[in-house]
Amino acid sequence: MNSNLPIGIFDSGVGGLTVYRALHERLPDERFVYLGDTARVPYGTKSLATVERYAIENARFLALALPAIRRAVNLEVIGVIEPGARTAVEVSSEKRIGVIATEATVQSGAYREAISDLVNEVTIIERACPLFVALAEEGWAETEVAREVASEYLSEMKDSSIDTLVLGCTHYPILRGVIQEVVGPNVRLIDSGEATARDCELLLQTKSRAHEPVLEIARERRLCDDLDHFYVTDAAERFSRVAERFLGSAPSRLEAVEVWGHDELRAY
Amino acid sequence: MNSNLPIGIFDSGVGGLTVYRALHERLPDERFVYLGDTARVPYGTKSLATVERYAIENARFLALALPAIRRAVNLEVIGVIEPGARTAVEVSSEKRIGVIATEATVQSGAYREAISDLVNEVTIIERACPLFVALAEEGWAETEVAREVASEYLSEMKDSSIDTLVLGCTHYPILRGVIQEVVGPNVRLIDSGEATARDCELLLQTKSRAHEPVLEIARERRLCDDLDHFYVTDAAERFSRVAERFLGSAPSRLEAVEVWGHDELRAY
Repeated sequence: MNSNLPIGIFDSGVGGLTVYRALHERLPDERFVYLGDTARVPYGTKSLATVERYAIENARFLALALPAIRRAVNLEVIGVIEPGARTAVEVSSEKRIGVIATEATVQSGAYREAISDLVNEVTIIERACPLFVALAEEGWAETEVAREVASEYLSEMKDSSIDTLVLGCTHYPILRGVIQEVVGPNVRLIDSGEATARDCELLLQTKSRAHEPVLEIARERRLCDDLDHFYVTDAAERFSRVAERFLGSAPSRLEAVEVWGHDELRAY
Repeated sequence: MNSNLPIGIFDSGVGGLTVYRALHERLPDERFVYLGDTARVPYGTKSLATVERYAIENARFLALALPAIRRAVNLEVIGVIEPGARTAVEVSSEKRIGVIATEATVQSGAYREAISDLVNEVTIIERACPLFVALAEEGWAETEVAREVASEYLSEMKDSSIDTLVLGCTHYPILRGVIQEVVGPNVRLIDSGEATARDCELLLQTKSRAHEPVLEIARERRLCDDLDHFYVTDAAERFSRVAERFLGSAPSRLEAVEVWGHDELRAY
């Protein structure tokens, strides 16, 4: 693979920015292309078939948008579920694992399946926490309201004595503080974004791609700087605002695009 | 107009069910066709241009879906904003009006404009309350969390001594109880759904259509009975569940359809 190729990330909206942050921290020399499908956000309440269709369109957009990627036949794809599940199984001593995610993710059974594939004897407790998304986007992560919502959502997890909790929705790391507080210091929180970033690093190492900085001239890479491109399908201004809340700074290169119904792309 | 024609309602998802409920209560002899665009919900975080496009597609679906309506040249369209604004101006004694709505509605300035068109001297205070939607859909309307969220969102309204508050998002009537509690008994709450139902009734009266029951045999009409048709663009099962929470019963006739990219419709 050519070391000048950026890493593509797509998500239904702003949630995947936590994954971007984790990737950026772990791979500061890489460039990223982010697609937030904000015209169709949230995916959390959509059916699996619809989300699959969106995912194909989004991946196709990223692939088409980048002529260099288009020419690369070995496009690597890493989802957040498998790395999160594997990390949870690795760190869980009692194999009592909680998973919190969107309604669609819980209903799909994706984490349950991924965890069960890795270990035979395991107790898995799942719970959808829809309000967490709005709390994160509103900037209410550190409020008493967030604490009470977390207490309500996580009461069954606490009663079931889980030792590991997967943050299975990309918004949830924003609420990490109150979640840890509610479940107590003995429960290990697994950030799927961080787990994914680690897998991505490993993959690049096996491809002998790591430690080849993208820039010849050394330069301190900031989150959202002009080397990283952000696309949204709608409401760019709102995306920018929430991005600033999630990441501390707004993307300097942010563009609205259409990802469906086009054989040729308008942007890029 | 033919008295056998149903009344079409469309919304981004489940929120418009409160409008359906209000219409049903006021016009128990009418039939309804509801379209929830759940594949593209929520509209509240989308841009105006996108929501306009969706609205056109949805209206077109409803018009095409009903051959009888298609033949009717005088298709009447009533939005929720104008009736809500007018009712607020009518009941407000001090002309100090609060409006709570989604981010998109507040940013569009639609209520501000509609109210200002009706009265010269008026103070309007607007606030987006995104968490209300999730609280309503989660069935948390009567909880302490809802009370605290409402206190936070409505503190400026209280300080500004409004005498009237427009519930400018179709989800918010579900939270009417805590909203009234927070703003106090002297603030009149305006349910745009109820105001719209009243306008609809008036329109039908001017068309000499009221008091012509749709059914020749008298029959008690229940919410969501098999005379009312519900369509969604995605996630029908979730829609059904939230509908039951909002209305007390799930639709007996609920169908998933596609509303875009088709000249001919698959359903109906």
